[in-house]
Amino acid sequence: MRSTHYDILFEPLRIGPVTAKNRFYQVPHCNGMGHRAPSGMAAMRRVKAEGGWAVVCTEVCEIHPSADVSPHSHARLWDDSDIPALARAAEAIHQHDALAGVELGHHGFRAQNRTSREIPMGPSSHTVVSYDPVQSRVMDKEDIRNLRRWHVAAARRAKRAGFDIIYVYAAHGLVTPMQFLSKRYNQRTDEYGGSLENRVRLLRELIEETKSAVGDTCAVPVRICVDELVGPAGLCSNGEGRDVIEMLADLPDLWDLTVGDWSNDSRPSRFGDEGAHEQYVSFVKQVTGKPVVGNGRFTSPDTMVSQIRRGVLDFIGAARPSIADPFLPRKVEEGRMGDIRECIGCNICAAADNTYTPIRCTQNPTMGEEWRRGWHPEHIPERESEDQVLVVGAGPAGLECAVSLGKRGYDVLLAEGSNELGGRSAREPRLPGLAIWGRVREYRVEQLNQLPNVQVFLASMMTAQDVLDTGANRIVIAAGSHWRRDGVARYHRAPISELDQAAVFTPDDVMNGKTIEGPVIVYDDDHYYMGGVIAEKLRSDGLDVTLVTPAPLVSAWTVNTLEQPRIQRRLLEIGVHIRANEALVAFRGGEATLACAFTDTRQTLKARSVVMVTARLQNSTLYDDLLARSSEWPAAGIKTVDRIGDAVAPGAIAAAVFSGHRYARELDQTPCGDDVPFRRENPELGSWP
Amino acid sequence: MRSTHYDILFEPLRIGPVTAKNRFYQVPHCNGMGHRAPSGMAAMRRVKAEGGWAVVCTEVCEIHPSADVSPHSHARLWDDSDIPALARAAEAIHQHDALAGVELGHHGFRAQNRTSREIPMGPSSHTVVSYDPVQSRVMDKEDIRNLRRWHVAAARRAKRAGFDIIYVYAAHGLVTPMQFLSKRYNQRTDEYGGSLENRVRLLRELIEETKSAVGDTCAVPVRICVDELVGPAGLCSNGEGRDVIEMLADLPDLWDLTVGDWSNDSRPSRFGDEGAHEQYVSFVKQVTGKPVVGNGRFTSPDTMVSQIRRGVLDFIGAARPSIADPFLPRKVEEGRMGDIRECIGCNICAAADNTYTPIRCTQNPTMGEEWRRGWHPEHIPERESEDQVLVVGAGPAGLECAVSLGKRGYDVLLAEGSNELGGRSAREPRLPGLAIWGRVREYRVEQLNQLPNVQVFLASMMTAQDVLDTGANRIVIAAGSHWRRDGVARYHRAPISELDQAAVFTPDDVMNGKTIEGPVIVYDDDHYYMGGVIAEKLRSDGLDVTLVTPAPLVSAWTVNTLEQPRIQRRLLEIGVHIRANEALVAFRGGEATLACAFTDTRQTLKARSVVMVTARLQNSTLYDDLLARSSEWPAAGIKTVDRIGDAVAPGAIAAAVFSGHRYARELDQTPCGDDVPFRRENPELGSWP
Repeated sequence: MRSTHYDILFEPLRIGPVTAKNRFYQVPHCNGMGHRAPSGMAAMRRVKAEGGWAVVCTEVCEIHPSADVSPHSHARLWDDSDIPALARAAEAIHQHDALAGVELGHHGFRAQNRTSREIPMGPSSHTVVSYDPVQSRVMDKEDIRNLRRWHVAAARRAKRAGFDIIYVYAAHGLVTPMQFLSKRYNQRTDEYGGSLENRVRLLRELIEETKSAVGDTCAVPVRICVDELVGPAGLCSNGEGRDVIEMLADLPDLWDLTVGDWSNDSRPSRFGDEGAHEQYVSFVKQVTGKPVVGNGRFTSPDTMVSQIRRGVLDFIGAARPSIADPFLPRKVEEGRMGDIRECIGCNICAAADNTYTPIRCTQNPTMGEEWRRGWHPEHIPERESEDQVLVVGAGPAGLECAVSLGKRGYDVLLAEGSNELGGRSAREPRLPGLAIWGRVREYRVEQLNQLPNVQVFLASMMTAQDVLDTGANRIVIAAGSHWRRDGVARYHRAPISELDQAAVFTPDDVMNGKTIEGPVIVYDDDHYYMGGVIAEKLRSDGLDVTLVTPAPLVSAWTVNTLEQPRIQRRLLEIGVHIRANEALVAFRGGEATLACAFTDTRQTLKARSVVMVTARLQNSTLYDDLLARSSEWPAAGIKTVDRIGDAVAPGAIAAAVFSGHRYARELDQTPCGDDVPFRRENPELGSWP
Repeated sequence: MRSTHYDILFEPLRIGPVTAKNRFYQVPHCNGMGHRAPSGMAAMRRVKAEGGWAVVCTEVCEIHPSADVSPHSHARLWDDSDIPALARAAEAIHQHDALAGVELGHHGFRAQNRTSREIPMGPSSHTVVSYDPVQSRVMDKEDIRNLRRWHVAAARRAKRAGFDIIYVYAAHGLVTPMQFLSKRYNQRTDEYGGSLENRVRLLRELIEETKSAVGDTCAVPVRICVDELVGPAGLCSNGEGRDVIEMLADLPDLWDLTVGDWSNDSRPSRFGDEGAHEQYVSFVKQVTGKPVVGNGRFTSPDTMVSQIRRGVLDFIGAARPSIADPFLPRKVEEGRMGDIRECIGCNICAAADNTYTPIRCTQNPTMGEEWRRGWHPEHIPERESEDQVLVVGAGPAGLECAVSLGKRGYDVLLAEGSNELGGRSAREPRLPGLAIWGRVREYRVEQLNQLPNVQVFLASMMTAQDVLDTGANRIVIAAGSHWRRDGVARYHRAPISELDQAAVFTPDDVMNGKTIEGPVIVYDDDHYYMGGVIAEKLRSDGLDVTLVTPAPLVSAWTVNTLEQPRIQRRLLEIGVHIRANEALVAFRGGEATLACAFTDTRQTLKARSVVMVTARLQNSTLYDDLLARSSEWPAAGIKTVDRIGDAVAPGAIAAAVFSGHRYARELDQTPCGDDVPFRRENPELGSWP
């Protein structure tokens, strides 16, 4: 059992008319399922409730088609027809005695209204933040009255749907009440603009009216941005951010505190540590008697206790940590600290929402799969055969596969060629900024230590003969991949012909400590994190570095993980030269030829080395060798040989973990044949014509 | 009635076992509705059938979750549960005696499988084309057998759903059979790679097996790319593109011909004319006895007749022209050429698909609204009052509003301040590349000429007093907008303080012929077409031009309209300097200060002028003046004063046309109050838990 030190985390606490059973509070977070996949969303929230969170909230819930942020798929309470979907979520959360919260939101000029085609509206006329050719109109008095009425109507619907906690949302710059609050966006001259008193008016009205409508039985918290991180030009915690809290001090039933925009609130671990918001939010409890929740990628129970004991927060808010481990509270409660699957702050979860994709998680392969595949983060069916399984390779896929097979009860052999477990999840965390990503390895190694039925063999590079000799019945190749050195990725579909191979390196070479001479070109046609990380590493080593990419941005895909602007800023600040929209087409005799991605115009650039951050190649030797000897399998007792993770096709770490987990789940299960391997939520074929 | 010259367009023609009633063939096209909005998709196709198209096809239809291109919402026949949605489309198309076609597709390594999480597969291992961190795996023999089986299963489902025409899709680089065909992507060494004979094998098998499965009653066409526009490195019409057609000459029931990728096949009018594909496709009828369809933004019946008479095509394929005018065939049939709403090639339709949004069209405001709002492109309810309506302003919104009100039978006054109708749809087409966009104006002026109940007044700048004096009961302000000159848009939410106003211009100044001295900075924080167009115009005038934008790309939003790479290429080729990721923060004394979008590092740039392509401001004087005199409305007979189009909030032309149309539709209709003003297709709340 746990130490009494942590008891404080399990004290019940009132929030207005309701009581949370402990201090663990899953703040609202997006998940890419929303109104398009309501059962998926509900089942995911249910697992959180089961895992011990006292409060489980939905993502933001659109209250009206005048602010529609499709194709983002959030919850919706546009009209009564949306109630059943939300009721399913509330019911699911209640099944495990958690309080169900819903974050009502109206996105003002941040909504492009792509689906509704309504003209967005806001405090003032603004261009939307995306590049859509859309501007908002200025809300007149009737618009403000309408917004207030819609908010009350949505609150009443939320209450009917069964929610206990109904938010007024004024954070992240995303929503109308905050757009009224911030002088950056509010240029009104009427009683809703000008002084802070005026700018806070709409928020105050929304709180009062929501409490009046549903406050008898439902708590009404406010989620607010206490600091926009733009100094006195916006809300700031020693200025108007503080003033707002003071003005409304005890009006809401709870304060849910955020800092900056979403990319700061879900700050990637490369750019911020656990609890990074404390300096901005610590004043709040001095000026309100209401409970306070705040987030900050909290995964350490000691940090959580400290936040509460030092009077920073009353509730430990979590979005990402609850995604990585829905059972975090229960594990703390049971003193199973080592079993906590700690969030690595990679923001692949945010990328799902930003690519309009159901949520996924690097650490938790069951995330988003609770309803459609029936997966549970803590339960996995028992084995259905006595087969022994050999997993070759202990990277993210192999580790996850071995652990999950072990939990099913299989007799597992895990063979790793090198001297350490982890594969890329051991190597990459040694690169700048990626240390926290090592938790992928750490969690699984800890689990392996608890599984006597999984035998681990280090320094065991396996040949086909070795595999045949083990006597294992199921062979899983998790041999990983290596970076190509021939330039092939998106721009080049065939190898670059003119390439001075002796001076060409890959990220593997960098991680293996090979000496690379500058000036060096990092050629990035991969576009996830590696190109930027390698450039940062080589520059930190003192080299003259030019990052060349056919994309218009450095690490272009990381716009989805909320990392991109920070990556490009950091590279520019440390002096990495950036040449975007250019492809490397030749490198010979100390000179690289770069082609403009638009015109194919060529320019040259002197360099002594090139690091190719392009595509990867699966390590296929063992698999190919085994296939060639398939006639020997029966005699060796081998029933199947499969590949998982990067050994099938290189991808993100999250994909490798998913792949390993899926293999473990599906072993000895009836294959679904040609059918779709998951349940779907298709549109109801309603009235016609 | 029509001239006999056009009779040939109305000849029936066999396609395998079925017969098309005429030569008008709506080729498959995306629409952003797909499997998420099956009723919307079906109703949209039905209107096409009603408009006289002999063949009406769906968009691409995914056959299996191993190639899922979500969040694009295409049709799906993953399993039997998808049949009812598709059956609705087939039934809708049949209601008007058209043939229903479905384009089965498997996207190979172009699928990111964001939803299904399957590993994409293709002929070889490839990085996906988007920046997603996803690579495909190499298809083995079993994968190829599976793909063939899935294709047959989907074909059988399509037949059960009622389709007459079931495609094998091998075009646009998007789908597996084409990825096998092109040596750019197929690096296999088995019997499916190497020689063209080998690379064509999969396509041949798919055709044969599909015909065998459904060919008794269904036609099986092939949609193919005859030229990838990369010369002999890929399929080309005097090389392997021709060879493929020769090899398979009479195997499919019809050839549907495409050229290049989607951005070429739906080439924006800025970069290509009607019938631009002829040089590439004209050989096909020499080498096959099967009918041939091809597209090319055909809107002119004379061009269509010429294509057939000269033996280029048998069927006139159309995607965009059928979106702009679903009734194009019937209008030709009835000799109503002037009523054809000609496509302007702006590709706002493609942008909808690319932003995962239900389709819309600049010319046809009913597109995508057939089911959810019950709108029809040719029918509009009769007026329900005797009210006289004054429309002030004859830009896209005002013209569309006056025309639609006129068709409803209202007595309409249309007052335009300038000497010509059209507003921005008269001015902007005089800028480089935008001539075809003038059709927005032309179509509506032609319609006005047929509406005696709409009186047009040119050179009639209206004051509030003028409006009160007209005696009209309904006032519609369509006064448009003007470009801001203070720098406000996305980067700057407040005016730039240091600005040498005498040397600052706007696109309005450029269109009004003001003299602008170089060197000139075009500062683009708008990101749709105008910045690129203004830069092109000024450069063509001989000025030294630097385009500065905080975005990473020129005209960044036009990635969605398939225009972006062509715009940036053209600007670079004519010598426009481009400074991306930089914002203009000051312009004083012939020197501009630019700030890096990432680090805020400042640089200076000499210039004599700046053209601000930033946000726009609605022209609000008349509306504000009228609001201030609202007490006088009753005596003047005024019931309502409303704004439409850019006068509410500046946006795209499509939004203005929609706004004007919507006003006309909704006048005297019961307002929907707080409810959602359209029907929705929400997910069925199915089995739980």
